Amino acid sequence: MSKTLELAKDLIARRSVTPDDQGCQELLISRLEPLGFKIERMRFGDVDNFYARRGTSGPLLVFAGHTDVVPTGPVEQWHTPPFEPTIKDGMLYGRGAADMKTSLAAFITAIEAFVADHPEHPGSIGLIITSDEEGIAVNGTVKVVEILKARNELIDFCIVGEPTSSKVVGDMIKNGRRGSLSGRLTVKGIQGHIAYPHLVKNPIHLAAPAIKDMVETVWDEGNAYFPPTSWQISNMHGGTGATNVVPGEVEILFNFRFSTASTADSLKQRVHAILDKHELDYTLTWELSGNPFLTPKGSLVTAISAAIEQAFGVTPELSTSGGTSDGRFIADIADQIVEFGPLNATIHKLNECVAVADIEPLQHAYKLTLEALLK
Amino acid sequence: MSKTLELAKDLIARRSVTPDDQGCQELLISRLEPLGFKIERMRFGDVDNFYARRGTSGPLLVFAGHTDVVPTGPVEQWHTPPFEPTIKDGMLYGRGAADMKTSLAAFITAIEAFVADHPEHPGSIGLIITSDEEGIAVNGTVKVVEILKARNELIDFCIVGEPTSSKVVGDMIKNGRRGSLSGRLTVKGIQGHIAYPHLVKNPIHLAAPAIKDMVETVWDEGNAYFPPTSWQISNMHGGTGATNVVPGEVEILFNFRFSTASTADSLKQRVHAILDKHELDYTLTWELSGNPFLTPKGSLVTAISAAIEQAFGVTPELSTSGGTSDGRFIADIADQIVEFGPLNATIHKLNECVAVADIEPLQHAYKLTLEALLK
Repeated sequence: MSKTLELAKDLIARRSVTPDDQGCQELLISRLEPLGFKIERMRFGDVDNFYARRGTSGPLLVFAGHTDVVPTGPVEQWHTPPFEPTIKDGMLYGRGAADMKTSLAAFITAIEAFVADHPEHPGSIGLIITSDEEGIAVNGTVKVVEILKARNELIDFCIVGEPTSSKVVGDMIKNGRRGSLSGRLTVKGIQGHIAYPHLVKNPIHLAAPAIKDMVETVWDEGNAYFPPTSWQISNMHGGTGATNVVPGEVEILFNFRFSTASTADSLKQRVHAILDKHELDYTLTWELSGNPFLTPKGSLVTAISAAIEQAFGVTPELSTSGGTSDGRFIADIADQIVEFGPLNATIHKLNECVAVADIEPLQHAYKLTLEALLK
Repeated sequence: MSKTLELAKDLIARRSVTPDDQGCQELLISRLEPLGFKIERMRFGDVDNFYARRGTSGPLLVFAGHTDVVPTGPVEQWHTPPFEPTIKDGMLYGRGAADMKTSLAAFITAIEAFVADHPEHPGSIGLIITSDEEGIAVNGTVKVVEILKARNELIDFCIVGEPTSSKVVGDMIKNGRRGSLSGRLTVKGIQGHIAYPHLVKNPIHLAAPAIKDMVETVWDEGNAYFPPTSWQISNMHGGTGATNVVPGEVEILFNFRFSTASTADSLKQRVHAILDKHELDYTLTWELSGNPFLTPKGSLVTAISAAIEQAFGVTPELSTSGGTSDGRFIADIADQIVEFGPLNATIHKLNECVAVADIEPLQHAYKLTLEALLK
């Protein structure tokens, strides 16, 4: 059994349902310390994190990832017990197999192999590991980044081990992510009996033309790396339940996924302008989950693309699609950042798995990237 | 104490919370039988109703009303026990005082006085009394009307004793009501993750322009008796609760209050045309609560207006405003129908009441109307 597979299995066997690390991080640390890594354990609230660094000079290449996993869902619907890593028909099954314990294992074995080959490598290798990526993400990576930023420890290259592959491993890397900006809008009217329309102001009626305007707005055209910014309502609720009462207000939850062609502030201003144009009486609270970030083609993209091509025989596509990841926090202190890892087809689902045949090439791709950038 | 006040108190003392009649109807019947009324008790489901008629020739004048009352609400917030009729500062307090046990009492004493004065009156006097006006109204007046219609017993004049007065008793009679047509609309889209807008179809986004069109539509201009038809959404609900999911459908409940310038079918057709113009994928179910009806100025309006003027010294305004009443069912078999009764300021509220000084004039107004029309 390969060292990577063995470590992946050891990690999967720990029930590290977010944010409970269950010793995964100490397992990783026990492999890093012998290599000369300096370890900083950073526990915030109920979240374990650590930062590890080997070397003091630049450039600094950081691997980032998380030990926590999402809940299993109905265990009886799994074909194998989710916390008993099982190989069947060439697949390694278990919760976290794809998201992202195999990547963590491959980080470690790639570093071990690289350090064995290049004990005096130039630059530094780092790791940022959290147990709060699948949860509310307030005591995890974001806090570690704050500390590094405060002491001006900036990252040259960052590789996040999220499962980015789509159809075959290596076909996609994320070289950025859209921003996510949410709004909770309450449009106010005047409640009353439906039989007396002259005494009411129907907030749903008032909101509809503003919604139409928002839907028709071209927020931006995107750019070479990003699709256009999109605006979507997730929830809209108005009404007392009674069918003869016009409600006093309607609540609308919406979300922007936005490109680097817009900013959170510009989007906020434009939403307020539309609501004000319609003379709505409203309250609106905003939550910025993350700004967009982008690593254009450059040394990191070139290095990891070549490494993937060599390890998997696949040319990766650059993409900024999909949800958010902890990359949004690290981007704040990283010059270049990409995400690359296994197939994402089974993540968060029953019977999560990776192909055993993909595990060693993954370790190899990470090691080749180290060799390209720390030489 | 006047006979009308005495009977009103006897009725209020019975806890006839809809649809439980609690013997109110037998009390009324015990007064009608000695006058030579032929009584037909008609119980449907848990609802007591009766039809009474004195005479066989035309014209037929029918008094219509209900013995059931709405629940009291928090009894401890009443100044007097709701089912202990109490006179205080010139007001008779109790649940049903205004809606509509005082009207029922006045019907009976007006008829008693009229029959005493005119034992051989021409035409016929009838009563349609239900205990299901405040409830779902399926086993009450609508069923009695079906029976009368089946045997072709048509009504020339109908007076519904609903509390129609607004500021002083006699200031308003209803000579019609708007129709009520409700729709339950489900607009369908395609559910999905908010980060993948190209894979979803947001039903709220799709519905908004159609709602805007509905709001802007002038359904009709109303006419001399009716305000314009109004369309209002009462409830709109879409969303899974999750803020990162675009819902698969949105449900919209709406209601028309419509004038005689429109028909239910024409409104349905126009709604479908708007939804189809927007190429929505939807389901829509309709419920017609009542068609609009109207009694233009004529012998009944003239007679009851003159009676009110004589009894109260007030000239009533004709109105078709407000909610629905059982008049919508009776209109189907009545040539002329109006509603007239006490002040409606306290109906369905705590401390429901009528002024004692208004009770005898009410009886007098009903009697004068009988004298004008059955002579």
